Amino acid sequence: MTKRKLETCFSPALFEAEGHVNSIVVIIDILRASSAICTAFANGAVSIIPVAEIAKAKDYKSRGYLVATERDGYVLDFADFGNSPFNFTKEKVYGKTIVYSTTNGTGIINLALSAYMTVVGSFLNIGALTQWLIKQDRDVLLLCAGWKNRFNIEDTVCAGAIADMLMRSNCYTTICDSTLAAIDLWSLASPDLPGYIEKTAQRTRLRDKNLDDCIEFCLTSDFTDKIPVMKNGALIADI
Amino acid sequence: MTKRKLETCFSPALFEAEGHVNSIVVIIDILRASSAICTAFANGAVSIIPVAEIAKAKDYKSRGYLVATERDGYVLDFADFGNSPFNFTKEKVYGKTIVYSTTNGTGIINLALSAYMTVVGSFLNIGALTQWLIKQDRDVLLLCAGWKNRFNIEDTVCAGAIADMLMRSNCYTTICDSTLAAIDLWSLASPDLPGYIEKTAQRTRLRDKNLDDCIEFCLTSDFTDKIPVMKNGALIADI
Repeated sequence: MTKRKLETCFSPALFEAEGHVNSIVVIIDILRASSAICTAFANGAVSIIPVAEIAKAKDYKSRGYLVATERDGYVLDFADFGNSPFNFTKEKVYGKTIVYSTTNGTGIINLALSAYMTVVGSFLNIGALTQWLIKQDRDVLLLCAGWKNRFNIEDTVCAGAIADMLMRSNCYTTICDSTLAAIDLWSLASPDLPGYIEKTAQRTRLRDKNLDDCIEFCLTSDFTDKIPVMKNGALIADI
Repeated sequence: MTKRKLETCFSPALFEAEGHVNSIVVIIDILRASSAICTAFANGAVSIIPVAEIAKAKDYKSRGYLVATERDGYVLDFADFGNSPFNFTKEKVYGKTIVYSTTNGTGIINLALSAYMTVVGSFLNIGALTQWLIKQDRDVLLLCAGWKNRFNIEDTVCAGAIADMLMRSNCYTTICDSTLAAIDLWSLASPDLPGYIEKTAQRTRLRDKNLDDCIEFCLTSDFTDKIPVMKNGALIADI
């Protein structure tokens, strides 16, 4: 069996679309967009429409959609709620379509639309996601959202955890330094993930804004078996 | 004393020039440009003119300069020699000005010209470089050349080693995830640096082209106390 290629990209600014038209791209933005999206599907959301621009989100709101929108962690005034996974409760999202716009994550989902398929990954769906990826016969790119185009540790460590599981399946091969480094950072982080994340810039940013209550939750493995998959401009849940 | 800021950038594509006009930028491209440059000064070169374009290097050659030029590891036909530090012997470079153009490293030196100062770092000058940086009262950006805009492990590990020394001096502070990750990767690599580098993509590329004879040398600490500093379009040696 020919092994599939596994690659990792540490920033949207380093994403080379033309190299991944036949790959499954996994979007990783664990603090907090990809964790919030996984939580929404776990709580019964029907679909999520990611939009990059605020104006577009506002327009959806005026047409009656449930809208989750934040910039730099803060909920925008017209929105129903912001970016914390704790907002996406069963009471609010069950059976609903949500329009979702964040500083980082949602723009990146649209960036990777030229790929064979775009899915959303986080610790919350990591076990199901890796099993699902292994079942597909495709190269995989783990695309870390980072922060304003910069490398970040938390997404890298999550990419490393996914990469570690995929490599152990023996279905993948990698000659990608980013993947190897991510796996190594995961090996350092895994014995005490919350402790390791403590030093990161985004941890500090969220703490400074009193938005860090969800971090422990975002670092929880296997909260859900839902795989958010991009289809026709919206995320829906595959399992 | 106000601590200086320490940051690390994993790719020229992530370099934000406007954030570093008052910083010293350390260019790191250890396999092989920054190691070759340090070796040239150790062996008595007077100055090195980095040029990005092949045509420009050719023009210098026609005007009688000693020219070192490679693309993807291979020496170009008009050049005196290529990119291996072993080319920059005392016999060839002592008292000379060298025009130097490589796939990656030399373009990046020119990219960072808007910084307060640009210097070249490698394991070969790591001890002297860090002592020299500590003496300057400036923020520092460690700029990894990577490979064709991608992250690479060998430059990151060297940046981590430099960052580790700078942070221990107590003169610097960092809230940069790239710096923290680089230090962590250095902590994994340092017990057996050649063994760690073995898995990297560039190690494989150089081995496939029989250009890997200099790797062990490039991983040697403190071969020289010369600090290549960019001044008026050319690198000269500071100590």
